[in-house]
Amino acid sequence: MTFDWQIAPLNRELVPEIQQRIDQKTKPLGALGQLEQIALQIALVQQRKRLSIERPLMLVFVADHGIAEEGVSIAPSSVTQQMVFNFLAGGAAINCFCRANHIPLKVIDAGIKHEIKPAPSALILHRIAAGTRNFAHEPAMTLAQAEQALTFGKEFAEAELAAGSNLLAFGEMGIGNSSSAAAILAAISGAPMETCVGLGTGINSEQLAKKIALVKQGVERIQDTSPLNILCEVGGFEIAQICGAMLATAQAGRLILVDGFIVGAAALLAVSINPNARDYMIFAHRSEEAGHQLMLQLLDAKPLLDLGLRLGEGTGAALALPLIHAAVSFYNQMATFDSAGINADITSGNPSATTSGTLA
Amino acid sequence: MTFDWQIAPLNRELVPEIQQRIDQKTKPLGALGQLEQIALQIALVQQRKRLSIERPLMLVFVADHGIAEEGVSIAPSSVTQQMVFNFLAGGAAINCFCRANHIPLKVIDAGIKHEIKPAPSALILHRIAAGTRNFAHEPAMTLAQAEQALTFGKEFAEAELAAGSNLLAFGEMGIGNSSSAAAILAAISGAPMETCVGLGTGINSEQLAKKIALVKQGVERIQDTSPLNILCEVGGFEIAQICGAMLATAQAGRLILVDGFIVGAAALLAVSINPNARDYMIFAHRSEEAGHQLMLQLLDAKPLLDLGLRLGEGTGAALALPLIHAAVSFYNQMATFDSAGINADITSGNPSATTSGTLA
Repeated sequence: MTFDWQIAPLNRELVPEIQQRIDQKTKPLGALGQLEQIALQIALVQQRKRLSIERPLMLVFVADHGIAEEGVSIAPSSVTQQMVFNFLAGGAAINCFCRANHIPLKVIDAGIKHEIKPAPSALILHRIAAGTRNFAHEPAMTLAQAEQALTFGKEFAEAELAAGSNLLAFGEMGIGNSSSAAAILAAISGAPMETCVGLGTGINSEQLAKKIALVKQGVERIQDTSPLNILCEVGGFEIAQICGAMLATAQAGRLILVDGFIVGAAALLAVSINPNARDYMIFAHRSEEAGHQLMLQLLDAKPLLDLGLRLGEGTGAALALPLIHAAVSFYNQMATFDSAGINADITSGNPSATTSGTLA
Repeated sequence: MTFDWQIAPLNRELVPEIQQRIDQKTKPLGALGQLEQIALQIALVQQRKRLSIERPLMLVFVADHGIAEEGVSIAPSSVTQQMVFNFLAGGAAINCFCRANHIPLKVIDAGIKHEIKPAPSALILHRIAAGTRNFAHEPAMTLAQAEQALTFGKEFAEAELAAGSNLLAFGEMGIGNSSSAAAILAAISGAPMETCVGLGTGINSEQLAKKIALVKQGVERIQDTSPLNILCEVGGFEIAQICGAMLATAQAGRLILVDGFIVGAAALLAVSINPNARDYMIFAHRSEEAGHQLMLQLLDAKPLLDLGLRLGEGTGAALALPLIHAAVSFYNQMATFDSAGINADITSGNPSATTSGTLA
């Protein structure tokens, strides 16, 4: 199977027109900082005068990782299943933040080790296998599994986009998945293992040394550094499905809200597969995880929040969504100097002329 | 007139009990970063098991400054009045963000130069005078004016708290007020003028040099460095009213949401008047304004957002409120390891025992 992603780069010719709209707002030039950049990006993606965030959705993909058997995490793989029950019962942090910010949440079993039988109806089943193989010693998944996971993610995203969502936020859970994300980062960046591998949910320094050595083993095995092969060698089923969903979202010209380190690894793979995907990504937060700084650099990303979070689940993305709504609100609703009857000549270079422009 | 602020310090004996509640949540210890600190602070302020943010309110105090006649801002004082019209018409950034985050907004004329006649019913009139005097050459206000402004702020806050608000967010507008805020910072900190005075809404380097010299003139006149005298010498009517409102809010044991540099100057004065007021303050954002870094240090504050904002109006506070709601939501709603059936022994030191505790 081959994927042929048709992702259009943003039309940067629209930048001057959009920037002028922003600069005509009743505020000093640039005074809304990063929110202005977000508004510009959304305007470039949506290519219309009135922006909107429609049916934003949080998708939490969950899977297990063979490498967890090495004790590289603070908890065993059984906790992945327990957290799925927690998500479905509404008791996890991501549930709280999605409720607080009115974001519908869907939970996808992308391949947890301890299958839930019978599966609750709220759990979306995209199981590839009962966890990946231990990538410290062998490829995490077969090519067929990687392609299946990308396809599951792609088709799921396409269905949600067809249902009206124009922003998909991504979250994840899976004991061991910070090892997989670190390996993906190391394989793509070539950076030292110590830069890429971090404490995950809070291991000690002895466990960290072991984690570094094991991730290194997996990464050193990789000869073919194509994104698909990296996914096969050291990836995870949730990461692969998120990657496929992101590429489909970009292909549809919709917005992608990227959470922290694990979802960032999926974003890094997606951008490696098709660089134009980057144009559609908004980065929610800077994680405490060591490798996230390098990852953000590689993605040329300045995230919205920096709250010392290191939980995953999509929590950073859920917390950042109100800022995106705020960016849209000022772009759509804020008065211009002309409309508010304020003389722009007296301010620092704000344009006073209203242009007709090309945006509908 | 004397003020006798009765502000209780937080009861830190409750910290272990509250921290244990946070640590029992289904997440690695500390994984929600700064949101955990906010939840802890709110729990200490509210002293009950179930936290709540009730009737949060954005109060935007507006006033003019005599020093504006020196050309230390990008716009003349007439823009202050024009922005009041913009606030009342719902067209300013703060209106957009308050609408997006469902925050009622009240606008207070604390003493603008060009009085609006007849005053629209939505405009709250707390006018002290038609702007302060030019503090580069003489005291900005009399002692009677300063006390009147503090009283207006105090009584207004008390009425809103009595009406059920348990969080007041503060914003401001007033051409020239970054000069006043910088002078307050310089007078309280003793730091070099270059550290305290910044670009405000975007002046050029020539204007900045002039602004520094003028602010310095005002600060050098100050012999008595009591907060009330600093307010008289270099303060502003909006800053004074915010200061009084903050002290009243702390006295009532309610939460104060601090915006950026100008509101921060009011917070600095309030804490200088009564250090216990600090316990009730949540800091919304790190402003681009140069002196804000020092101000945050003096207040021992780590703000929630760092978005490169430099607009004022309360915009940072309005943007931060959803994070406060999120902190409350995880504290109230998130499952514990016990309730979710997850064995905490296998995680990194999270407590599994549920304590009865002392909080109602």
